[in-house]
Amino acid sequence: MNIGIIGLGLIGGSMAKALKQNTPHTIYGYDLQETVIKKAILVGAIDEPLTEEILPDCDLLIIALYPQATIDYVHAHCDQIKKGAIVMDCSGVKAVVCASLEPLAKEKGFLFMGGHPMAGVAHGGFTHSKKALFNNASMILTPATGTQIEVVQKIKLLCMQIGFTNTQIASPEEHDRVIAFTSQLAHVVSSAYIKSPSALEHKGFSAGSYKDMTRVATLNEDMWTELFLDNSEFLEEEIDGIINRLTEYSNALKSKDAPSLRELLKEGRERKALIDGEKF
Amino acid sequence: MNIGIIGLGLIGGSMAKALKQNTPHTIYGYDLQETVIKKAILVGAIDEPLTEEILPDCDLLIIALYPQATIDYVHAHCDQIKKGAIVMDCSGVKAVVCASLEPLAKEKGFLFMGGHPMAGVAHGGFTHSKKALFNNASMILTPATGTQIEVVQKIKLLCMQIGFTNTQIASPEEHDRVIAFTSQLAHVVSSAYIKSPSALEHKGFSAGSYKDMTRVATLNEDMWTELFLDNSEFLEEEIDGIINRLTEYSNALKSKDAPSLRELLKEGRERKALIDGEKF
Repeated sequence: MNIGIIGLGLIGGSMAKALKQNTPHTIYGYDLQETVIKKAILVGAIDEPLTEEILPDCDLLIIALYPQATIDYVHAHCDQIKKGAIVMDCSGVKAVVCASLEPLAKEKGFLFMGGHPMAGVAHGGFTHSKKALFNNASMILTPATGTQIEVVQKIKLLCMQIGFTNTQIASPEEHDRVIAFTSQLAHVVSSAYIKSPSALEHKGFSAGSYKDMTRVATLNEDMWTELFLDNSEFLEEEIDGIINRLTEYSNALKSKDAPSLRELLKEGRERKALIDGEKF
Repeated sequence: MNIGIIGLGLIGGSMAKALKQNTPHTIYGYDLQETVIKKAILVGAIDEPLTEEILPDCDLLIIALYPQATIDYVHAHCDQIKKGAIVMDCSGVKAVVCASLEPLAKEKGFLFMGGHPMAGVAHGGFTHSKKALFNNASMILTPATGTQIEVVQKIKLLCMQIGFTNTQIASPEEHDRVIAFTSQLAHVVSSAYIKSPSALEHKGFSAGSYKDMTRVATLNEDMWTELFLDNSEFLEEEIDGIINRLTEYSNALKSKDAPSLRELLKEGRERKALIDGEKF
């Protein structure tokens, strides 16, 4: 089939490379930067540029843009999209995107599938994209109510072909609630963690825990600001939750309350064991 | 020389195995659990049990116990320790230990060296100890004022022989201040992070960031309660600091203030780049 990829950054570029490598499909690519399209052709990541003429021939469109840009692109091109084609986005929030594009797809006769590939590296752009980015990663799909199982299966198979080993089906709201915890809160905490005045003196004083805690502080603030604001309700709840829990540890310390402190730490250890499936 | 190791848990057991493997010294070991001593002999981690008779023949004693137990052990055995011998501890806080043992050492004619091997794994005990535990790790030493450089060099050489690639010299207070940030705060944040109600539903929804954030929630609550209370002033400051910073992110979100949120994230990214030595 003909697959069009819009946005050849880290995710779109990696999708293109992985699809070219692992499937027989014809890959068309579009990016705002003309040089990126040329580079993508040069390295064999896409077959040809995705032009306005080719767009109506695509059976699958993968949109790898920020949320608002995703919404804008599909609205702007909805009349050119083939009837029955599948349009999948890749953005990190789902409710706001699906709420806008599901009704549009229904109205215009194509299928919209919310998607979120759970993969990334510190630095974005086509330069950092790679065909192995999705190896062993999870893909979250948020199909609209009434989506035929065959459509989900088709996307799922494609995901497996390009390296994903796990596909999760969720509602857009479920996705956004859990992602606020697993990914967004991690980025906020890392960013807040690294700003301790002590951070400037830590060289040689740290084992793995400092490194783990601050890894995702290296982020793209434009993208994450948009993702956070699109999911502010769930994320606020997560940030306020961890603030409240941290306050418990601080209070136990301030009152030199060893049994309470021990209990707080024990609860955390047991929760971790429960979640990761270990005995405790 | 004769090296006595007191406490054959994760750290002491690994010290024994690494010293036996990489140095020609004779290693004596003591543990409260008789079976651990037997196991250590059986696997060749120590040459012989460290008995009360052998203790006065040791040139170096490595104490690998919790802070209070370290203090208690050295006070209880101070009259048996050879004049001029070096006693090094391995506990995760230094001010409280050094304040007690430096004057004692001076009075009794042996040398005390505060030490903190920056290495660990999730599970403790001799069973999890290994000779490679310290490979590529940092060793922090907090020599008392007036310690001869030859003594520091001797310990440093030994550390290099058993795998450490970096030795830091600090005052006990410097150590405790920085460790509150690099290690203790990481354990508190991990423990608080994992307790989000959303944590129970995250399977398949997480990339590396969740895993990194919660890794050290698997901790020994008895040991960490003691370490935290021994360093409560610095740790309280770190916890309250991150609470204040997290509140800034939460406030920016609640007021839908994109520029402030973006700025907070940008600051974090730049701080991380500055500290890790990257350009930004």
